Amino acid sequence: MAASPSPTLSRTETLNLSGLAVVCAVILTRSFENGEGEPLIASLCFSGLAFAASYAMIRWLGPTFVNAGLKGRDMSKVNNKHYLPECMGAICAVVYLFTIIVFILIPFYKDIVVATSGGGNRDVVMNIEYVQRGRLLHKFPHSKLASFLSAIISLHSITILGFGDDLFDIRWRHKFFIPAFASIPLLVVYFVDFGVTSIVLPTFLQPYAGRELLDLGVLYYVYMAALCIFSPNSINILAGINGIEVTQSIVIAALLALNDILYLTTPYPHPATDSHLFSLYFLLPFLGVSFALLAHNWYPARVFVGDTYCYFAGMVFVVVSILGHFSKTLILLLLPQIFNFVYSTPQLFKLIPCPRHRLPHFNARTGLLEPSVTRWAPDEQPHPVVVRALRLLARLRLLSLKEEQGLVQESSNFTILNLWLVWRGPMREDRLATEITLMQLVLGLFGLVVRHKLALLIFREDNLDLRSVV
Amino acid sequence: MAASPSPTLSRTETLNLSGLAVVCAVILTRSFENGEGEPLIASLCFSGLAFAASYAMIRWLGPTFVNAGLKGRDMSKVNNKHYLPECMGAICAVVYLFTIIVFILIPFYKDIVVATSGGGNRDVVMNIEYVQRGRLLHKFPHSKLASFLSAIISLHSITILGFGDDLFDIRWRHKFFIPAFASIPLLVVYFVDFGVTSIVLPTFLQPYAGRELLDLGVLYYVYMAALCIFSPNSINILAGINGIEVTQSIVIAALLALNDILYLTTPYPHPATDSHLFSLYFLLPFLGVSFALLAHNWYPARVFVGDTYCYFAGMVFVVVSILGHFSKTLILLLLPQIFNFVYSTPQLFKLIPCPRHRLPHFNARTGLLEPSVTRWAPDEQPHPVVVRALRLLARLRLLSLKEEQGLVQESSNFTILNLWLVWRGPMREDRLATEITLMQLVLGLFGLVVRHKLALLIFREDNLDLRSVV
Repeated sequence: MAASPSPTLSRTETLNLSGLAVVCAVILTRSFENGEGEPLIASLCFSGLAFAASYAMIRWLGPTFVNAGLKGRDMSKVNNKHYLPECMGAICAVVYLFTIIVFILIPFYKDIVVATSGGGNRDVVMNIEYVQRGRLLHKFPHSKLASFLSAIISLHSITILGFGDDLFDIRWRHKFFIPAFASIPLLVVYFVDFGVTSIVLPTFLQPYAGRELLDLGVLYYVYMAALCIFSPNSINILAGINGIEVTQSIVIAALLALNDILYLTTPYPHPATDSHLFSLYFLLPFLGVSFALLAHNWYPARVFVGDTYCYFAGMVFVVVSILGHFSKTLILLLLPQIFNFVYSTPQLFKLIPCPRHRLPHFNARTGLLEPSVTRWAPDEQPHPVVVRALRLLARLRLLSLKEEQGLVQESSNFTILNLWLVWRGPMREDRLATEITLMQLVLGLFGLVVRHKLALLIFREDNLDLRSVV
Repeated sequence: MAASPSPTLSRTETLNLSGLAVVCAVILTRSFENGEGEPLIASLCFSGLAFAASYAMIRWLGPTFVNAGLKGRDMSKVNNKHYLPECMGAICAVVYLFTIIVFILIPFYKDIVVATSGGGNRDVVMNIEYVQRGRLLHKFPHSKLASFLSAIISLHSITILGFGDDLFDIRWRHKFFIPAFASIPLLVVYFVDFGVTSIVLPTFLQPYAGRELLDLGVLYYVYMAALCIFSPNSINILAGINGIEVTQSIVIAALLALNDILYLTTPYPHPATDSHLFSLYFLLPFLGVSFALLAHNWYPARVFVGDTYCYFAGMVFVVVSILGHFSKTLILLLLPQIFNFVYSTPQLFKLIPCPRHRLPHFNARTGLLEPSVTRWAPDEQPHPVVVRALRLLARLRLLSLKEEQGLVQESSNFTILNLWLVWRGPMREDRLATEITLMQLVLGLFGLVVRHKLALLIFREDNLDLRSVV
């Protein structure tokens, strides 16, 4: 089933990838020749190039990774003797980082051309407004450069630390804090360059607080750090079956991008246009490299993504949402991850024994995945309170529990993947990945609707509501 | 001789490191309490903390690196059966990066306090001049933030790529271009944020050119990219004996820092003060982590530094010198590396066979290093032109050549380390490292004197000459 990927591209692949790369390069060049340099189109082209580069490099570098010891076996396959390259998300991260670094030139292109009189004399700066004739969509203030760079530094940091995790196999309780380190650049630059730590209070709370804005001060940094820790880790623990790390990331990125597009297509330029352009510039290339990875990681997987990818994906979401000031929207889109984390806590905090791997159990006879279980020996029964809690969860259909003569035999492991199998019965690996992904998509779409339709109930204005901002 | 380092710190080491860390932390806190936040003192404290952190982590993580396959044997020792941790420079790089990221807060501290009215309202910005009473030394313009961040991104990139090199053992002809990739962030941000591509022409050329400044345009970027490629690689090829990679880097960093201090101690604030403060902020923590590495890499080495360190060191020099606009000074300090590179070209470009390793030959009987040689079989004699060139070099004492009956027997390998051994005779590894380091130091000091005393002959004004700038 799961075969090691050939380190060379097939003829069709080479043709398709080269074709894509050429088309992207041509559009990119032409958009510059027209003096347009429309950043969004450029971003799409860069994303196409990033897809092609990642796709090819994942194939070419597979054996190199295996030789360096970055390899693993697929535990949910019948024939799993040989090793597959592990940590291929590192390739995506590096391609992504170089793409986004080169891309910086584009949104600032107009500013550079306008602001420099020939030989790069930066003293003569004309107001961009005078020259700009297009929509606000074109505009990208120069002050955003620091955001751009701090976002890149945080993503760099998470790549280095994530790669270290994959290589050195850091313990779970240590690696939980890896994203905290990577959040430092983001928080430091946020502090230096923005320092906005106020949030809008819901209307029903405003009479009590006596104000509309609440300055959280240091707490705001704690909140941002918590989000930086949670998002990457939450992606990392919803894992274990082929493709699931990548598909959930693609869904979240696509929904964030959809949300951005809503702001860019309002009849009048929206004040948050810049933030959402910024967000799109980071999300589109991420989608590019993720699809390249998915092509190799989808069932039956020919490569593994590694913790690097999960951390990296989670961090991309955090940097765009923090620097774009829509972190609450991100939380809304992470609902399945939040559920999975909360649901996992009994095992994460060792209230229930937690085996090294909790991925669904592969039944080699049927070829289907079944919920994996924690077995309870007769002499190592859970605490009576735990037994009662387990029974309650089982009654609520939040657990599969097997008891015999008053003794707990086995309980399913506390992950959303196992729970889904409890609900829906055994199924093949790719079907499980598809269903979970669809669930993430439907919940996310629903979340966005709630976000924009119902926000007016608890906040004075929705970001998409123009009456209050025009 | 060379023993694997103990993964725990001795009691004395723990005491000393903790003491150092506490002292640094106390000074740091007190300087903030005084409302001073003097960035240079803070930078020294951060460097001390970086030293302590690297020192401890090099010890703690040694076995982890060995287990992950990052290990090597010391070829110049009698008892070299066991493996030493390789690539420990990666630890230094990561510690350095996090140090410098957190440090960003300091130079901007005053600006933040001044510019924000309480709750982080960035709209009310007061001119820093009104509040600042101290010397210009205190001042750090906010516009420097982008330089800071782009420098960090370049260093991040070189760390990722250098680590990839150490892990995947990339071929020489490919890895030569690794720094080129890492230079992209620097060049992109330079283009976006500065765009100054003019250089001052030497006075004797000015009548011919009819101007004082020459705009190099694109060529300036080629020049910067070339420097980015050369500096890291030149450190990387002056390697092969215990400690030499670190000591040469320390000497270059110290001389650059000395050069910076010259600008900060002029009787009147020098216009380039900011650039040189910026440079010091990057060099001091680099010295911190380098000394921690040297303590373990000096003869007899207990860890190896890896290509990561060499690339990283070279890139630190490039970013400070490019963003500080003193790249010519860097070239002056890299003279031994330039000589080593030019001298190596016959082998690098395969005019003379180039063995995998060209490090000096260890004579196990005497315990001394001797020049390593390329042997010429009677039926594989060099081309007559090459023979003539070899003889010329030998006569100039730039080569040791052994001939017998008109046939070339062996010629010493083309590295400065072997040449030094040809000149000075066999010597112990640490003595060779010391002598080469001293040579680098003396040449560098001489270079700085030439730079500041003789610059007036070919340029209208020296940077340290104040008559023209006050």
